[in-house]
Amino acid sequence: MSVEIANISASMDFVAEFCDVDAMGVVWHGNYVRYMEAARCRLFDKLGYGYLRMEQDGFAFPVIKMELKFVRSLRFSEKAVIEATLKSFRDIVTVEYCVKNSKGEIALKAQTQQVAVLWSTHQTLYQTPEVFQKLVDNLIEKQSA
Amino acid sequence: MSVEIANISASMDFVAEFCDVDAMGVVWHGNYVRYMEAARCRLFDKLGYGYLRMEQDGFAFPVIKMELKFVRSLRFSEKAVIEATLKSFRDIVTVEYCVKNSKGEIALKAQTQQVAVLWSTHQTLYQTPEVFQKLVDNLIEKQSA
Amino acid sequence: MSVEIANISASMDFVAEFCDVDAMGVVWHGNYVRYMEAARCRLFDKLGYGYLRMEQDGFAFPVIKMELKFVRSLRFSEKAVIEATLKSFRDIVTVEYCVKNSKGEIALKAQTQQVAVLWSTHQTLYQTPEVFQKLVDNLIEKQSA
Amino acid sequence: MSVEIANISASMDFVAEFCDVDAMGVVWHGNYVRYMEAARCRLFDKLGYGYLRMEQDGFAFPVIKMELKFVRSLRFSEKAVIEATLKSFRDIVTVEYCVKNSKGEIALKAQTQQVAVLWSTHQTLYQTPEVFQKLVDNLIEKQSA
Repeated sequence: MSVEIANISASMDFVAEFCDVDAMGVVWHGNYVRYMEAARCRLFDKLGYGYLRMEQDGFAFPVIKMELKFVRSLRFSEKAVIEATLKSFRDIVTVEYCVKNSKGEIALKAQTQQVAVLWSTHQTLYQTPEVFQKLVDNLIEKQSA
Repeated sequence: MSVEIANISASMDFVAEFCDVDAMGVVWHGNYVRYMEAARCRLFDKLGYGYLRMEQDGFAFPVIKMELKFVRSLRFSEKAVIEATLKSFRDIVTVEYCVKNSKGEIALKAQTQQVAVLWSTHQTLYQTPEVFQKLVDNLIEKQSA
Repeated sequence: MSVEIANISASMDFVAEFCDVDAMGVVWHGNYVRYMEAARCRLFDKLGYGYLRMEQDGFAFPVIKMELKFVRSLRFSEKAVIEATLKSFRDIVTVEYCVKNSKGEIALKAQTQQVAVLWSTHQTLYQTPEVFQKLVDNLIEKQSA
Repeated sequence: MSVEIANISASMDFVAEFCDVDAMGVVWHGNYVRYMEAARCRLFDKLGYGYLRMEQDGFAFPVIKMELKFVRSLRFSEKAVIEATLKSFRDIVTVEYCVKNSKGEIALKAQTQQVAVLWSTHQTLYQTPEVFQKLVDNLIEKQSA
């Protein structure tokens, strides 16, 4: 059985802070990477496999690829929400992101890909840790129950 | 005549500063967006159409899409070089980036896409400003001469 | 009457995000300036004189001095709260900050000083705008009522 | 003999990059902490006791206090230089900073204080490591020779 599409999500509210805004008066495009990471952390926490747990188990999940599409800019003090959705998790961890402004309009669509790395040897693994896959499997089962 | 591939480059040396490095001891992946922008600014300066000139002319060139592939991480205090190469400039401004460490090994491959926007109306233009295209055309001619 | 000590406060919860943490595994000291600014914005909003209102009225309140004392470090994913308290507001706007970790232990004590600047001429003013002083006076009156 | 005033300096050129600039069109005040750290790293390298050496020896030198005075703002693409000068190094490491714009006008005056910490126990030391003091002593001797 190949349930590759996990569709487990976590979302986070945020505000376009003054120091996130550039000379054009809108959120500097590189700052979305910070929002994405923060949302991804909340997603991993939800999966029961946060960064601290990863580290304890001797793994890291570095981002190997990311793609961002900037649809609409966010102005200073605008409220927004970012949703991170797990799309694959067995070999490559794929997470999709969507930022919406307070009117519900899309500001950003993005995707990251991560691989598991054995911390001690810096060796890239072709499969994510078994314990991680199990945690996600359980969560998918619960959601579809 | 459709000289779409410009192949004009600018490069910038940089050091992986302490505050650019994350808890893993390597440059935090989001910081590459800063290096890319800095290199792109030097590229636009070389084209004779830097950000200040853009602004004076009433244009902005927001990034609408970017893609980054992380090949090798940079450690604290490592010296690196980033090269930004103009790939297209008539409708969409495409810039490709390559970061290499001091051994010449590739650390990052990336691409950005920008469109021209009329600052006064925030209207997206289907063509970059004529003056900009002319500047690039001249530079291409010089290079191939 | 010289009610110089305003003691109006605003606080903000935050989490030590992964990208805020340095190679030592603790929040990089420069990032506290971001938390301080975010808390200060909430304080100015509470006073009814947020950055957007300032801008509309033609003023800016640049920071001219800041002092930070780092008491205890915050680790990745630690929850914290920052409180910003208005201390003076007639000539120089003085704000004091205190960051506490989830155990209520002090992580940072800091202070900023700002002056009002007339945006059109970039001229520093020896007094903050009257409308601003009035708003604070009213709030102090309400608090002591 | 108490040569407490070291007066050993290191300086670094930098450019006010686009992503360093805020909505006011000038370098965001918090970014000076980054320039200061980069200059301090170059100063420690000059002393022969860079961050990597510190780490190897089992020490860290966290900033416990910093004070910044913003004299003049730097605009996007402005060239500047920051100089870091060691002022004390036996118990507390005091470094003073001065940022000047391309006209030689002062933009920032600042100071940091650091203490040595034993990495294994996180214990604060009342004296900086002997090897560090010796390196600085030797450099002072050379300078005054």
